[in-house]
Amino acid sequence: MTFRASIDIMPLPALLDPQGKAVSSNMHNIGLASISNVRIGKHITLEVEAADQASAEAQVKEACEKLLANQIMEAFTFTMEAVETVA
Amino acid sequence: MTFRASIDIMPLPALLDPQGKAVSSNMHNIGLASISNVRIGKHITLEVEAADQASAEAQVKEACEKLLANQIMEAFTFTMEAVETVA
Repeated sequence: MTFRASIDIMPLPALLDPQGKAVSSNMHNIGLASISNVRIGKHITLEVEAADQASAEAQVKEACEKLLANQIMEAFTFTMEAVETVA
Repeated sequence: MTFRASIDIMPLPALLDPQGKAVSSNMHNIGLASISNVRIGKHITLEVEAADQASAEAQVKEACEKLLANQIMEAFTFTMEAVETVA
């Protein structure tokens, strides 16, 4: 079965997010002063072939830990759904 | 009221995503060969002060169009929820 995972990788809440701070400041300059607390991370989608959802989740978790996220600075969450296989 | 928006900005499906392709290749090298079709975009969270949800959504849409997303190469989607205000 094919599963599609949707992963969000965000800077940890305790850390400064300079890119987000810069965007927050710029919101004011373009007249959107009511927007604040901008934080910027990564959104990753991928497909994984696995026998069942538990196995697919284990693989996505491993991919996040080994390659996608830097766990010293980032936290990841993901959702997963089965994809209809085209016969 | 304060609303929290969660924005996903992804490269358009018609476009190549070199960063995603590179990660896909590397999945094989770390023993996760069943992962494919990796696409990498941005995930942005922000807070917006607005009278109601429609007004908050209009501001987030404007922020995406003016500052956050490059609509030639990227598409954005967002979800929004009201935040409990601390009295």
